[in-house]
Amino acid sequence: MKNAINLINKLANQFSKLPGVGFKSAQRFAYKVVDMKKSEADELIESILNVKNNVKYCEECGNFTDVSPCDNCKSVTDLKTICVVTLPKDVFTIEKIKDFKGGFHVLHGTISPLDGRGPDDIRIKELLTRIEKNNVEEVILALNPDVEGEATAMYISRLLKPLNIKVSKLAQGLSMGTDLDYADELTLSEAFNNRKLL
Amino acid sequence: MKNAINLINKLANQFSKLPGVGFKSAQRFAYKVVDMKKSEADELIESILNVKNNVKYCEECGNFTDVSPCDNCKSVTDLKTICVVTLPKDVFTIEKIKDFKGGFHVLHGTISPLDGRGPDDIRIKELLTRIEKNNVEEVILALNPDVEGEATAMYISRLLKPLNIKVSKLAQGLSMGTDLDYADELTLSEAFNNRKLL
Repeated sequence: MKNAINLINKLANQFSKLPGVGFKSAQRFAYKVVDMKKSEADELIESILNVKNNVKYCEECGNFTDVSPCDNCKSVTDLKTICVVTLPKDVFTIEKIKDFKGGFHVLHGTISPLDGRGPDDIRIKELLTRIEKNNVEEVILALNPDVEGEATAMYISRLLKPLNIKVSKLAQGLSMGTDLDYADELTLSEAFNNRKLL
Repeated sequence: MKNAINLINKLANQFSKLPGVGFKSAQRFAYKVVDMKKSEADELIESILNVKNNVKYCEECGNFTDVSPCDNCKSVTDLKTICVVTLPKDVFTIEKIKDFKGGFHVLHGTISPLDGRGPDDIRIKELLTRIEKNNVEEVILALNPDVEGEATAMYISRLLKPLNIKVSKLAQGLSMGTDLDYADELTLSEAFNNRKLL
């Protein structure tokens, strides 16, 4: 029995490395593995192996890909606009709106001195290289509207200003369909300051 | 890129079968796998395989084990008291208090007609067999104090009464260290009804 429990706890330890998973949840995951059919466990393992062996980051744009440079980067002949995002998952979020036809660039993080991440720790150098190589005309910063995101946006825009490139960031204001009551003060004040003439 | 995303989503699908994991969390787990070192992913896979191949349930007590019957069940020579719990993890919880020296019996569920689980779907028959075989004198029902737990306790106690066995359940009342203010009404009323003479 001791041996069984050691194996379960070892697995729980592995699971607890997943984001947002505490040891209690990790233990529940491990118990679930004991309960799983053999075929289900095999599928899980196969999926992990498939991702681990085939998915990497594109050396150009930084997005998930199975070949690098990715299909997107290879097919682009005329890259005039680049949308800069923090993480690969943000690419899917922006792709959902279907309005944007340019390329993406994934920074893989934000500048955050408190966490010891400076400009060299994220993919800013790669962004500059792509901008120069492709004569990019506009950079849209689609970073999260938090302290690190704003600081990173500020840093990049200062870098790009001398290159005569249009730099913009996503508008901040009220979410569609929300009630004024539920908007936080910062959002409300942004919405107020950026009011639009009708 | 499409291929990479398919692989990631496939893995997310597998992760979303873990208890309490929605698709968004499962996706974050899958992204984490992309980020992991190869060695970390290998450790995770090895742990899953180890649990899957070596951990099973003891055919006697129903607890986790690598050999069945488990060491506990094999070493017991005189089983006078059995503590009945819902799930294997409850065994560890009770073992923590170190006061209990008898054997355990894991039901692997509770009676819950709403979920289509009757007495035959949990390990009650096995409990009766063990009680007869070992001339058990006392059964302690350590089930959760919720509707299903109470119903299951009631069912088992009625089964065992004619066999002249002492059946008890864990006391309900105030938690140690809590403030009266924070106790819910049901708990408070149980504590009131079960008040203890000093």
